[in-house]
Amino acid sequence: MLRFLIALAALLGASPALADLLVDHVNGYTMEDGRLTRFTGLLVGDDGRVERLLHEGERRPERPRYLLDGHGRTMLPGLIDAHGHVMELGLGALAVDLSDTNSLEEAQQRIRQYAAANPSPRWIVGFGWNQERWHLGRFPTAADLDAAVADRPVWLVRVDGHAGWANSLAMREAGVTAATQAPTGGRIERTGRNPSGVFVDAARQLIEHAVPPPLPIVRDRAFQRAQDILLGFGVTATADMGTDQEAWNTMRRAGDAGHLNVRIFSYALGVDNLLAIAGTGPTPWLYDGHLRMGGVKLYMDGALGSRGAWLKQDYADAPGQRGYPLMTDTVLKNLMSRAAMDHFQIAVHAIGDAANAELLDAIDELSGTYTGDRRWRIEHAQIVDPADLPRFAAHGIVASMQPTHETSDWRMAEARMSVDRLRGSYAWHTMLDEHVPLAFGSDYPVESPNPFPGMAAAISREDAGGQPPGGWFPDQRLTLEQAFAAFTTGGAYAGFAEDRLGSLTPGHMADFIFIDRDIFADRDPASIRATQVMETWVGGRKVWERRSAN
Amino acid sequence: MLRFLIALAALLGASPALADLLVDHVNGYTMEDGRLTRFTGLLVGDDGRVERLLHEGERRPERPRYLLDGHGRTMLPGLIDAHGHVMELGLGALAVDLSDTNSLEEAQQRIRQYAAANPSPRWIVGFGWNQERWHLGRFPTAADLDAAVADRPVWLVRVDGHAGWANSLAMREAGVTAATQAPTGGRIERTGRNPSGVFVDAARQLIEHAVPPPLPIVRDRAFQRAQDILLGFGVTATADMGTDQEAWNTMRRAGDAGHLNVRIFSYALGVDNLLAIAGTGPTPWLYDGHLRMGGVKLYMDGALGSRGAWLKQDYADAPGQRGYPLMTDTVLKNLMSRAAMDHFQIAVHAIGDAANAELLDAIDELSGTYTGDRRWRIEHAQIVDPADLPRFAAHGIVASMQPTHETSDWRMAEARMSVDRLRGSYAWHTMLDEHVPLAFGSDYPVESPNPFPGMAAAISREDAGGQPPGGWFPDQRLTLEQAFAAFTTGGAYAGFAEDRLGSLTPGHMADFIFIDRDIFADRDPASIRATQVMETWVGGRKVWERRSAN
Repeated sequence: MLRFLIALAALLGASPALADLLVDHVNGYTMEDGRLTRFTGLLVGDDGRVERLLHEGERRPERPRYLLDGHGRTMLPGLIDAHGHVMELGLGALAVDLSDTNSLEEAQQRIRQYAAANPSPRWIVGFGWNQERWHLGRFPTAADLDAAVADRPVWLVRVDGHAGWANSLAMREAGVTAATQAPTGGRIERTGRNPSGVFVDAARQLIEHAVPPPLPIVRDRAFQRAQDILLGFGVTATADMGTDQEAWNTMRRAGDAGHLNVRIFSYALGVDNLLAIAGTGPTPWLYDGHLRMGGVKLYMDGALGSRGAWLKQDYADAPGQRGYPLMTDTVLKNLMSRAAMDHFQIAVHAIGDAANAELLDAIDELSGTYTGDRRWRIEHAQIVDPADLPRFAAHGIVASMQPTHETSDWRMAEARMSVDRLRGSYAWHTMLDEHVPLAFGSDYPVESPNPFPGMAAAISREDAGGQPPGGWFPDQRLTLEQAFAAFTTGGAYAGFAEDRLGSLTPGHMADFIFIDRDIFADRDPASIRATQVMETWVGGRKVWERRSAN
Repeated sequence: MLRFLIALAALLGASPALADLLVDHVNGYTMEDGRLTRFTGLLVGDDGRVERLLHEGERRPERPRYLLDGHGRTMLPGLIDAHGHVMELGLGALAVDLSDTNSLEEAQQRIRQYAAANPSPRWIVGFGWNQERWHLGRFPTAADLDAAVADRPVWLVRVDGHAGWANSLAMREAGVTAATQAPTGGRIERTGRNPSGVFVDAARQLIEHAVPPPLPIVRDRAFQRAQDILLGFGVTATADMGTDQEAWNTMRRAGDAGHLNVRIFSYALGVDNLLAIAGTGPTPWLYDGHLRMGGVKLYMDGALGSRGAWLKQDYADAPGQRGYPLMTDTVLKNLMSRAAMDHFQIAVHAIGDAANAELLDAIDELSGTYTGDRRWRIEHAQIVDPADLPRFAAHGIVASMQPTHETSDWRMAEARMSVDRLRGSYAWHTMLDEHVPLAFGSDYPVESPNPFPGMAAAISREDAGGQPPGGWFPDQRLTLEQAFAAFTTGGAYAGFAEDRLGSLTPGHMADFIFIDRDIFADRDPASIRATQVMETWVGGRKVWERRSAN
């Protein structure tokens, strides 16, 4: 039946909004008024919106125009990633990924194959190499890379992002010679006097300045790839946290061509991009509710890994260092004011406890001027002084957090901070206790955009290997309902879209997914983590399905 | 009746497309298959397109949903300006215009009033002053300007564009002091050692670098002003000859907000803007046929006034000078190729005979590679070697010309070139004789965007004062039908829009205007020049009407 309907839809044209679609025999879950509710059928109008949820035993319309039999599969509303980077996800997916290679030879082979399969763009870029994993006992060299590809410049970033590996042609085109000196904060690996091919930290720029920016055709491809990845993980809506003009133009091209399927809440990368693109206020929802620039993304500090997060006390593993703010409080407030005066939403990256405190101060001060429903967003809110946690509840601040950051970072956090200073870290549960609106995301491509490992992390605070057993600061574990809400209604609220997205409610967009298991039945973190999405529907249209299915 | 219908339309919502509108009792003209035809009624479908033309005595539908009585007024298809600058028109309209002031005192008064009426933006900019016209006997000074406005920086460009006049605050904010030296190619007027306020040619940049770029709110206002001006002159579609990203974003904001009424064929300002915006090919028609980026604008040379037009022989009034190309032929062909390979249309500014010859060579060469219907556009094509005129007919080149440039420039052209070298200048008639597609425009804001003086110039080659009597090179005069075609079907063809715009033909957009006289009845250039547009309709909706009318 399903197969027949799909064929029928195909006959009717490329991607018709299915009019009066009855989806029946499903094991459906959605948040409704803050509670998890169940349903067995869904009626979709020809405007791509939910008309009605149907429950067990409830009478079905007699003559739906289209009928989709769910065969009892579990159905959820489309998931929302409240913090991601769409173009970076797509561009990364187009690059050579060496992160699973176990030897230099395997990496060389991978690069060689990539070059053959991708004749353009001319520069080959990639990431993920790790000479430790290769048991190489040294950094790789330009000659090692020339052995794979010598006739096109190649530039590959190390797994930690702190070093890059160039081949000889890349060095030549970048103008690097034996006479080139490393800039402050950087190091050039050398063989004798000659650069050997690896450039560390600030020295990476010596090569990177020569890498051409992606061509529009590559950006378009990257966008489609990102969209496909997101839809494949059941993400039907995402915040794009830092959209520049090139990214915006790319998304608009997709929309103009009718290829925009995922829904994007865009936050401009800084005030200049915001004003150039959106101008004097948030854009309307464009492309039938698929794209909107509603606000701006600013940065208060850096990240914990590079000790750029701004802390109230010294780093435990680097006495004398506390990180640093990326702007003064005056500049921060000026930028926030500039956007807020035109009713843009403000989303500010704050990782360290000093950064979070400073940002809370700024919001305290600006809330007197910029009143109304502002939904100031603090992005990450990772390390918060427990004394500052109650301050989030003021002024309607939204905590936009990423559960997989916790499971990836907890060991590093302990090294950087010592445990007694981490009681307000990744403090999801406390946020909810304080009635702070919570929105979950992944910060893709830093983490995978797959929300199911995020839910697993949120309820267990154990990583994929079950570490630490019982969870890190287990008091901060959430219920699965809470985690699910933060990936659905929480994300919609954070993007001023709770009137249309996040739950399968009459009048909302018919964005839903079918998954391969009932996550609410067994609630096992490992099983939730392994959940696979089978189909993804946006606005009542199927926009993705797993290839091996059916 | 008309009044009633308008009230009815208002009741039905802001700007509904009128379904099944019968426009009756009109004195209608349109081009049809290359000939002027007449009609007395027009039927418009609810899609905003022409359903049918109705002729005298032909039976009308009995129950049209809307009926508009034209009361015998003359109706034309909306006019098309094939070469203008939308944002520059709007920004200029927002600035102080001193071009009709007859004394320094009058100018000061104008500036004072403007400052009071326009509290923002803080910098006051304007144009059009002429100390000769004021009989001032000297350049004006910063002190003269301070007497009008001293508490905001003021910068006013002279009528010829070659000099600017700053007040004291503008000089201070630009960092200009007695020690400031004029750059090569520029001059600072001085009183003793101090800059007196006027900066000539390259020295203008000393102030202009300090003028802030327009804010988005100003750009949005400027766009609406430009649109209003164009619609008020009956221009329902226009080429925007050099769209940068800020301009594109502004137009999209207007489209996103539903405020885009004029139709715009956009040609990106250079290849970088083209690729950043449109990416890998022309955009679709956006906003229900109101905006499309179809190509790129390049510049082969400069202008005749500043002796930047590139000539085959020396300027008669500047021996040893021939102007100069703005790029080498290799660069030109590379840029043209870059755009043509992705099927973008190419429009190149060429004024001088050497520039036109070089561009013709380039098109000759590239046409072998980039085949098919390319419609290479030569913009201006002002001074062409008669030997080169027949070359336009090859490769489907479109001559995009501006008749009012001829009537404004002919005296200067004679000074620059001597008459015997001008036999191929502004050679509209020869272009048509050679079967070259001809598109007319105004190059607004260089000239007024009003197409009626353009038609008058085209048929008379006399300026508004009737000079020179009988017309300059009168062999090049066109018939009114030819001029009208160049402002309608010619512009549509030049923009690849002849399937939808330019004539009132079934299936075309119902873009039409009512004018206050029958230009085809008396055919008097002075009368045509004075034509007033009464109403402008786009896509079957009234988008402009003269205030004093009815």
